[in-house]
Amino acid sequence: MNEQKKIGLFGFGTVGQGFYENLKKHTHLSAVIAKVCVRRIDLPRIGHELYFTDNPDELLLDPEIDIIIELIDDAVAAKQYVHTALREGKSVISANKKMIGESLKEIDEWHTRYDATFLYEAAVGGGIPIVHAVDGFFRDQEVLKIRGILNGSSNYILTQMQQNQWSFEQALIDAQAKGFAEQNPTLDISGVDASYKLSILAYHAFGEVPSLSSFSAESIENVTKELIKKAKTKGKKIKPIATIEIVDGKIVCTVKPQLVSPNDELFSVDFENNAISVETLISGKHTAAGKGAGSLPTGSAVIEDLKRLLSGYSYQVSKSKKTVA
Amino acid sequence: MNEQKKIGLFGFGTVGQGFYENLKKHTHLSAVIAKVCVRRIDLPRIGHELYFTDNPDELLLDPEIDIIIELIDDAVAAKQYVHTALREGKSVISANKKMIGESLKEIDEWHTRYDATFLYEAAVGGGIPIVHAVDGFFRDQEVLKIRGILNGSSNYILTQMQQNQWSFEQALIDAQAKGFAEQNPTLDISGVDASYKLSILAYHAFGEVPSLSSFSAESIENVTKELIKKAKTKGKKIKPIATIEIVDGKIVCTVKPQLVSPNDELFSVDFENNAISVETLISGKHTAAGKGAGSLPTGSAVIEDLKRLLSGYSYQVSKSKKTVA
Repeated sequence: MNEQKKIGLFGFGTVGQGFYENLKKHTHLSAVIAKVCVRRIDLPRIGHELYFTDNPDELLLDPEIDIIIELIDDAVAAKQYVHTALREGKSVISANKKMIGESLKEIDEWHTRYDATFLYEAAVGGGIPIVHAVDGFFRDQEVLKIRGILNGSSNYILTQMQQNQWSFEQALIDAQAKGFAEQNPTLDISGVDASYKLSILAYHAFGEVPSLSSFSAESIENVTKELIKKAKTKGKKIKPIATIEIVDGKIVCTVKPQLVSPNDELFSVDFENNAISVETLISGKHTAAGKGAGSLPTGSAVIEDLKRLLSGYSYQVSKSKKTVA
Repeated sequence: MNEQKKIGLFGFGTVGQGFYENLKKHTHLSAVIAKVCVRRIDLPRIGHELYFTDNPDELLLDPEIDIIIELIDDAVAAKQYVHTALREGKSVISANKKMIGESLKEIDEWHTRYDATFLYEAAVGGGIPIVHAVDGFFRDQEVLKIRGILNGSSNYILTQMQQNQWSFEQALIDAQAKGFAEQNPTLDISGVDASYKLSILAYHAFGEVPSLSSFSAESIENVTKELIKKAKTKGKKIKPIATIEIVDGKIVCTVKPQLVSPNDELFSVDFENNAISVETLISGKHTAAGKGAGSLPTGSAVIEDLKRLLSGYSYQVSKSKKTVA
């Protein structure tokens, strides 16, 4: 059990470096970074003891490497690396919500076809272990509803607009400066980013990939100063709420700015924080909240996946399919 | 890996029966109830296929039994059963917060001395997996503060007094009728029950058993109609708040009714719900909320412990001590 597993790491940006620094502190984990694949091999790098390459195959086809951790931006390349790695029998961890959210049909196939484990906790809810929780519920009890704040940038912008009367533009620039929003913020603001995360949760809660037609998303740009004033007068807040419900037997996913009252568990979730509340038939409503955006929560979620992977855990959703087949 | 582990179950009251019913639904778990020890063997029992006895040794000294699950009221007997089982090399799950909260010094010794695993998620926070979470944080990052609502009955009573203007007595009788408060409610109301839970969390967060002198508890009976009226005027609520802080390098544990404002993550936690918020140095504040009292959340926490046990998990707090020794 105590042999060191060898990690091939794709990407050495903020999240990749955060993971590298974080892993150094987890001296009890029997895993070590063997190779790092980066796009720009010519750039100066921290982590001089690491082996850097710009050739993906050096990681993907190396039989010595047991685990691929994919932390790059490019969703198309990420998908190709993950698929190759799984086909090669390697276990994989990814944080790529866009790639995973868009490729759930294939991922469902991969979970069933390959014996290698594929985990992606960091793709949803930052430091909140929600994919793991929902995946467990799917196996053990009926999920009735999932509702939460899944996009840290939208929540940060709306919080600043309401608490400090900032304009949308001012809040967006600040969110970008703090690393909570992408340089191209369209996915965050429009609700598409939260929709990716909803579809991942829906898949793990219900075992099926929701169809695109089941989604509706509304941009937070529709939130005007007048709406904010009205909300304040009533003692309420406007929050970017993402919801999965079953309506007439069908999964319905909605992302839109909504009025929230003080007795709502999402009322106190401000700034870049995320929160998710899962209602189950047997054990009622569970809510979890924590930092949703930023490199530390994401890096910490990757470490948690690595721990699960090393302890032999894989998602239940795939296991039940394998049992059925 | 697929051999069936044999469970010896102590207690067949609400929680014990809840566990039995719940386990039947988890057909994929490789564990089966072999024997049940009850105080009154003469009472009619559901679960006719089960083997009942009133002799504890039939479970504790049976080499065929791998796992003891202790779900009885009597804290003194519970402690003896748990200790004997661990000494006999059996793994143990308990939900007995009084026994565990009062015996942490011995439990710390047991964790270090015996190789058998001892888990007790159900003793704190009902269905919220907080012992597991805090125990993981202890190993991996510095915990700064723990704050929450850890007693479902107190919260239920205070909620009814505030939302529906009930008297303390009326709310207490209702809580008892609904199974959220014990027939002798002193431990719940006085804050002693929450103190047991705090000390369990403090032990797992910091690796040491807090001294009795570090505790202060104030009863919710001190909450008058005048205080409630004042809180309401300010848009606040009075909640039974339990806190662990490090003051001058010492663990300080407090349980008392406190004013909470709408922006506080505990404001929306009403009725029998519990919530716990853990602040860590690295990954910020994590909050989890869910049903805190009742047989279903407790039964579900016992099942979660059983899953962890079967997957080879044991508390980190003991492992780090073993490494040091």
